[in-house]
Amino acid sequence: MGFSVKVALIGIGTVGCGVIRVLEENRKTIESKLGFPLKLKWVCDIDLERERPVSLEPYQKTTDYREIINDEEVDIVIELVGGINPAKSIILDAIKAKKHVVTANKALLAEEGLEILESAKRCGVDIGFEASVAGGIPIVKAIREGLCANDIVKIYGIINGTANYILTKMEKEELTFEEALSMAQEEGYAEADPTLDIEGIDAAHKTAILATLASGEYLSLKDVFVEGIKGLSKEDIGFARDFGYKVKLLSIIKKSGEDLELRVHPTLIPENHSLAKVEGAFNAVSVVGNAVGHTMFYGMGAGMLPTASAVVADVMDIARDISKGISQRVPVINSKVKRGLNIIPIDELTCKYYIRFSAVDRPGVLSKISGVLGKHSISIESVIQKGRREKGFVPVVMMTHEAKEKDVQKALKEIDTLDVVGARTVLIRVEENEHF
Amino acid sequence: MGFSVKVALIGIGTVGCGVIRVLEENRKTIESKLGFPLKLKWVCDIDLERERPVSLEPYQKTTDYREIINDEEVDIVIELVGGINPAKSIILDAIKAKKHVVTANKALLAEEGLEILESAKRCGVDIGFEASVAGGIPIVKAIREGLCANDIVKIYGIINGTANYILTKMEKEELTFEEALSMAQEEGYAEADPTLDIEGIDAAHKTAILATLASGEYLSLKDVFVEGIKGLSKEDIGFARDFGYKVKLLSIIKKSGEDLELRVHPTLIPENHSLAKVEGAFNAVSVVGNAVGHTMFYGMGAGMLPTASAVVADVMDIARDISKGISQRVPVINSKVKRGLNIIPIDELTCKYYIRFSAVDRPGVLSKISGVLGKHSISIESVIQKGRREKGFVPVVMMTHEAKEKDVQKALKEIDTLDVVGARTVLIRVEENEHF
Repeated sequence: MGFSVKVALIGIGTVGCGVIRVLEENRKTIESKLGFPLKLKWVCDIDLERERPVSLEPYQKTTDYREIINDEEVDIVIELVGGINPAKSIILDAIKAKKHVVTANKALLAEEGLEILESAKRCGVDIGFEASVAGGIPIVKAIREGLCANDIVKIYGIINGTANYILTKMEKEELTFEEALSMAQEEGYAEADPTLDIEGIDAAHKTAILATLASGEYLSLKDVFVEGIKGLSKEDIGFARDFGYKVKLLSIIKKSGEDLELRVHPTLIPENHSLAKVEGAFNAVSVVGNAVGHTMFYGMGAGMLPTASAVVADVMDIARDISKGISQRVPVINSKVKRGLNIIPIDELTCKYYIRFSAVDRPGVLSKISGVLGKHSISIESVIQKGRREKGFVPVVMMTHEAKEKDVQKALKEIDTLDVVGARTVLIRVEENEHF
Repeated sequence: MGFSVKVALIGIGTVGCGVIRVLEENRKTIESKLGFPLKLKWVCDIDLERERPVSLEPYQKTTDYREIINDEEVDIVIELVGGINPAKSIILDAIKAKKHVVTANKALLAEEGLEILESAKRCGVDIGFEASVAGGIPIVKAIREGLCANDIVKIYGIINGTANYILTKMEKEELTFEEALSMAQEEGYAEADPTLDIEGIDAAHKTAILATLASGEYLSLKDVFVEGIKGLSKEDIGFARDFGYKVKLLSIIKKSGEDLELRVHPTLIPENHSLAKVEGAFNAVSVVGNAVGHTMFYGMGAGMLPTASAVVADVMDIARDISKGISQRVPVINSKVKRGLNIIPIDELTCKYYIRFSAVDRPGVLSKISGVLGKHSISIESVIQKGRREKGFVPVVMMTHEAKEKDVQKALKEIDTLDVVGARTVLIRVEENEHF
């Protein structure tokens, strides 16, 4: 028997089945690229009987992951259970047993990742997590290795396929948020409980991971400002179009010296921007480095086989290291320099804003509103005022010049108390990027 | 003195100066990512006195690369001389002296790469060549590692920035080829002798390298069918637009079982295709894998700092292996399986064609031309016939349905002998791709 690397798979849902399929269908390619075979020895799930698109027969099966941890032959554990528990125990147990881990678990990495990374370092094993961000796009490797000669200055990402699918449907078919969400659920692009996707939490998990890679310091979900797309109105998507913008759930990372902006929120981006053209369940990540300039990476952000492509690439990467007798080749956290990044609070943000007021349709209202804005040093770039009257109110829509979030929030609070203003004012941040 | 990796740079042109700058300006980031410093010890060029945007003072200088080969302290040699000679001797000498090599030299890799790769394998050293294709875009790493779980099915690339700059200028500003070329030369996007770029050779070099990575078998320039953009007329770019297409110098790799298509030629692609939107000196590579589906990688294909970003990333990659005491971690050529790819001759190609005839403006001409096409089993999808008369001839422009290259070439030969046809018929291949 020649050398081989032995793998165990824990969690056999959609992506798990994809991993089994890729390992089977691309077996020859994988072996010829590695120079030795990968052997899937164990599969583990709490339900082994469920109907699946792949057969589990060729593998040792168990419902108890400890059997795998106790098998000394197993080199790499693939954790595809998801969520915090029991995924965290599975990974920490595997690490303690000196097994390398490959995971797609963004929630765990963004919330409890530091403990996992430090434990792996202590035990001399690796954690592969390419599949945790942007599915099949090899963006983790691109930032960790491909662009490693750069100081990463900016990252913009469309990294939640569900939210992007909903926004694309709202825009193209003029649906309401609720209609687009039901459609996404019917077509399998959104889960029965879509909270993580529509409230921006999933995108924020991934943003924390990208920021950790880009900065070399561990950043967690808590460090990311988050607003989801829940309840976004189709009117705002329409007005945005009138101004020449599209609305995307954008992940934004900007680094300037030790200052770091980390945020996820619905964002107006110019309609001719390359990210504006990313539709449906596709993902794209734009990375600006101080040497390379602007780069962009595009592909399927989810799905059985695209995500499996990333999982198996990680397994192959670690298998190469195992065959060479090494580990911890590319540290995630920079060891030497502790720089202490300064995360900019959202109050300190400066950007352009899209603002929609519900105003009484009578003379002098616009002057009242703009008076308050002016008092808070917010100047207006353009205004759309349409005659559409809803319950006695008309929409007044503005694009501001660059302004401070703090000032804008104060001004809106004041404006919302004016008697000429009806429903709550809508605020969406704008990014105008010089890049393609 | 702690551990460090020592580097020598041979060839201090634009990219060489970029490498010096990146190593200097990003020194802290590089060291904190690696956990140890990279030290540039030597710089070598036949002309050390020339004015450069960086100072060579901090380094040992030589005009004789053998000094570097003989320095046992040097771990990695960066070859940025370009061309076949003396670059080949420099690289082979470095390999024999057990030094790792990083190079941006696509011509050498595509023409004499097999000897270099085999020599490196024999001596247990690595060859990094990220910078040889698509400048700063980490496409070599993406195909070798990021997408390594896939059978690569298709690659489309815009990988010659000069040609793309010229085509963009011709299209946007309605310039002739000659006008756009002069403009590219004035603005530093084309060299005084632009042959390699406008005849498609540079793109073909890069295509051979991408195909080698995608297939795991060494493929050389000789395996690639090449047609350049030289002499492309602005009329054809205009007619292409009328049909809804743009003209790009496209690198095309398609693999189906053991069959491989490898070609570089001006190509009509639908104007809403993502590659159609890649303008100026930017590059983009679209890669389709059997698991990941469609991915795309975009960025600057040339330039001092983007190319240096790729060179330094390779140096860091190899430095990591040196610090771990390993080499040859990711073989370029698959060792185990010798599959013997079957390269499809251009005659056997099947695609749609754009054809422009110069025809006499009188009744019956179209029927004569289409009669010959029909005889060779070529059916026409659409025709534009405009009344513009040039020296007694009018352009008749056609898009065919899918047809065989062999049949099309035969038909054109026959048509060019008709007395109703004037100047030589223009033929441009068309790619219609289901992907974004």
